[in-house]
Amino acid sequence: MEEIKIGLLGLGTVGKGVVKLLEQSATVIEQRLGKKIVLKKVAIKDLKKERDVFLPEGVLTDQAEDVVNDPEISIVIELIGGTDAAKKLTLKALKNKKHVVTANKALIAEEGDVVIKTALDHKVAYMFEASVGGGIPILRSLRDGLVANRTESIYGIINGTANYILSKMSDEGIEFDQALKEAKEKGYAEADPSLDIDGIDSAHKLKILTLLGFGLKVNMNDIFVQGIRNITLSDIVYAEELGYKIKLLAIAKEIGVEIEVRVHPTLIPEDHLLAAVNDVYNAICVTGNAAGQNIFLGLGAGDMPTASAVLSDVIEIARDPTRSFHEHMPMVNTLKSIRKIDEVISKYYIRLSVVDQPGVLSGIANILGEHNISIASVIQKERNVGDTVPLIMMTHEAKEHEICQAMDVIDRLPVVDRKSMVIRVEMI
Amino acid sequence: MEEIKIGLLGLGTVGKGVVKLLEQSATVIEQRLGKKIVLKKVAIKDLKKERDVFLPEGVLTDQAEDVVNDPEISIVIELIGGTDAAKKLTLKALKNKKHVVTANKALIAEEGDVVIKTALDHKVAYMFEASVGGGIPILRSLRDGLVANRTESIYGIINGTANYILSKMSDEGIEFDQALKEAKEKGYAEADPSLDIDGIDSAHKLKILTLLGFGLKVNMNDIFVQGIRNITLSDIVYAEELGYKIKLLAIAKEIGVEIEVRVHPTLIPEDHLLAAVNDVYNAICVTGNAAGQNIFLGLGAGDMPTASAVLSDVIEIARDPTRSFHEHMPMVNTLKSIRKIDEVISKYYIRLSVVDQPGVLSGIANILGEHNISIASVIQKERNVGDTVPLIMMTHEAKEHEICQAMDVIDRLPVVDRKSMVIRVEMI
Repeated sequence: MEEIKIGLLGLGTVGKGVVKLLEQSATVIEQRLGKKIVLKKVAIKDLKKERDVFLPEGVLTDQAEDVVNDPEISIVIELIGGTDAAKKLTLKALKNKKHVVTANKALIAEEGDVVIKTALDHKVAYMFEASVGGGIPILRSLRDGLVANRTESIYGIINGTANYILSKMSDEGIEFDQALKEAKEKGYAEADPSLDIDGIDSAHKLKILTLLGFGLKVNMNDIFVQGIRNITLSDIVYAEELGYKIKLLAIAKEIGVEIEVRVHPTLIPEDHLLAAVNDVYNAICVTGNAAGQNIFLGLGAGDMPTASAVLSDVIEIARDPTRSFHEHMPMVNTLKSIRKIDEVISKYYIRLSVVDQPGVLSGIANILGEHNISIASVIQKERNVGDTVPLIMMTHEAKEHEICQAMDVIDRLPVVDRKSMVIRVEMI
Repeated sequence: MEEIKIGLLGLGTVGKGVVKLLEQSATVIEQRLGKKIVLKKVAIKDLKKERDVFLPEGVLTDQAEDVVNDPEISIVIELIGGTDAAKKLTLKALKNKKHVVTANKALIAEEGDVVIKTALDHKVAYMFEASVGGGIPILRSLRDGLVANRTESIYGIINGTANYILSKMSDEGIEFDQALKEAKEKGYAEADPSLDIDGIDSAHKLKILTLLGFGLKVNMNDIFVQGIRNITLSDIVYAEELGYKIKLLAIAKEIGVEIEVRVHPTLIPEDHLLAAVNDVYNAICVTGNAAGQNIFLGLGAGDMPTASAVLSDVIEIARDPTRSFHEHMPMVNTLKSIRKIDEVISKYYIRLSVVDQPGVLSGIANILGEHNISIASVIQKERNVGDTVPLIMMTHEAKEHEICQAMDVIDRLPVVDRKSMVIRVEMI
């Protein structure tokens, strides 16, 4: 049986998953591919470190160059992460006419241009299914399955940590800090969780989804990003009372010739399937002009799901390593531009903390009205004249910059106790 | 720009969808493919019939042979349906070294062997993404995205008509006949709905899913098929009371070296996402050894979703029509065999109609016990001694043949009023 020799850079969680899966799925891979995938070299930093995977004598090396320069290796899997060594080694491998497969979303999001161009120049593949949605074959589905569709919108729950936290807050009635603590204890959140909970990881992935779905290159700076740190249990409870769930959504949406590209906590109708995606699950909802709404759901992280995606790329290349991989590269559509967050039109959930006295609601409603914002519904509870009470409002569609201006005025009213919470609503 | 000339056999609902989508998505297709797809010939039966799609002069022909013999046409889309003319023309096209794309699940299910072999022999592609799940890229996902996984199970809601009927019964509290009538009025059910509601269409699709997911060729006769005609509103209500929804499920599941392949109404836990898939939506839940549970959801029928799938195949071929398409063909795994329905182990929902008198429940429980079936829960209502009352039981895991034997005995008891209803339960 023909052998395809591959090399691996990095032996962390996902790297070990790849080694394990190559062994566990050896039979099905050989049956489906008609070839054998042989892991020839694995580059690590420290040869002395104990590892719980078995590798034959001579496979481990602490010289990454040995992997990217090995003439027998045709596919290199880069699982180092980060943008320094990973970039250098990726470019070297591509220039050596080796295909590269990665899960490194930061590298693609930040240095994708040069890496993709290098792959195209050297007529090799650079594939990164594992960079978005873990084991969910979402990039392939955009590239192949939905290729005949003009993408209308992409809504993604693509950060498992944030989704776990919001789910726990809702299910267990706990505050953000407690849910974050639980996520850390379960190993779902890093010691420094800011990449996940501040939406940066979602933004990296959204950039990749936007490239595949819309053919649009977006600068990270042009993606509006807001995390979930400020979401309180009371917001979750009020949203549910109004028939919504709060999710950290990554959104790319076509509005005429513009595309909105944004990441933020979002109220979505509770009867939409995305609202039922809980814990560390990821889901991406793609609407195309012909296929309508498709939802792809699965495990967005973890060693084995990510290894599944990595190996799907390896196998696709191994089917015919000498063919042109031009069509695997995202095509760029220069006709579209990005709509600035100020111009976004949305419904809004607003939670105010106000002193309960006559005329407060009408005063606030007047200010909103002056900014062309009309109120769809109100929740006002626990009336005790003179106390501070929460006042929750859902607006009809309004412009982001008008909401911002109105909230600036409202938050300076003497009856308003502290900065109000504003959350966008998407009627998916 | 390079042109890929294609031909179309049949201009029914899906055929017209393909013509429309080629026009609507022309720009994105050209951007992504870097080539132009030109519909050169469309074969129809009657040239005089009025059609609401625009085709340039000279494209329509009533000679199907002109399409499959045209030396300029490299891809033929077969949308005639059925197994006679479709088979003849498909084989002719393949022998003429034309790739063939189809939505014809009956042809693949019944004559797939010879058609796939012919394609392999002539080194051309035979692709059928549109045959299962309409616009959902499920076959690709099994072939490419989840290729590194040993498939553990596939659960599919893959018949929109049956799902519409069951959803309506549940949502509106109506009986089967009324829901079927509404489905016909909305155009979701044919005048003769038996293919859909008796599970045959789901079985055709399940055969294809089993081939892609498990590499297993199944004879239609070896698939256990049961439709939804006998499901009553009361079953739906009792199931919901017990925390379940009833869905027509297509199931392929690995149990050791055997695969269970069956289609029948099934109780599934109400908190599983498949339970929330309503109306004409389709969804397929695939569990792999690495990726875990993935769910693919979308529109399982309709002109445009199906056209989206048809064109995804056309575009994949058009990317490089001269390459080997060997890897697009399902690989056959000869290590697995089919487990007979008698050997299936499942939990069961049982609804009996019994005369309400002392000792009835214990008598029935005894008979079940003698067949190694233990009861997990019981619903017994409206006690009026002497009347006929429904008695609902959920069993623990039991063997199908023991359930059948027990029910045979139970249904002959004098206190049992009519044939009991037994529905399998899957703890997905």
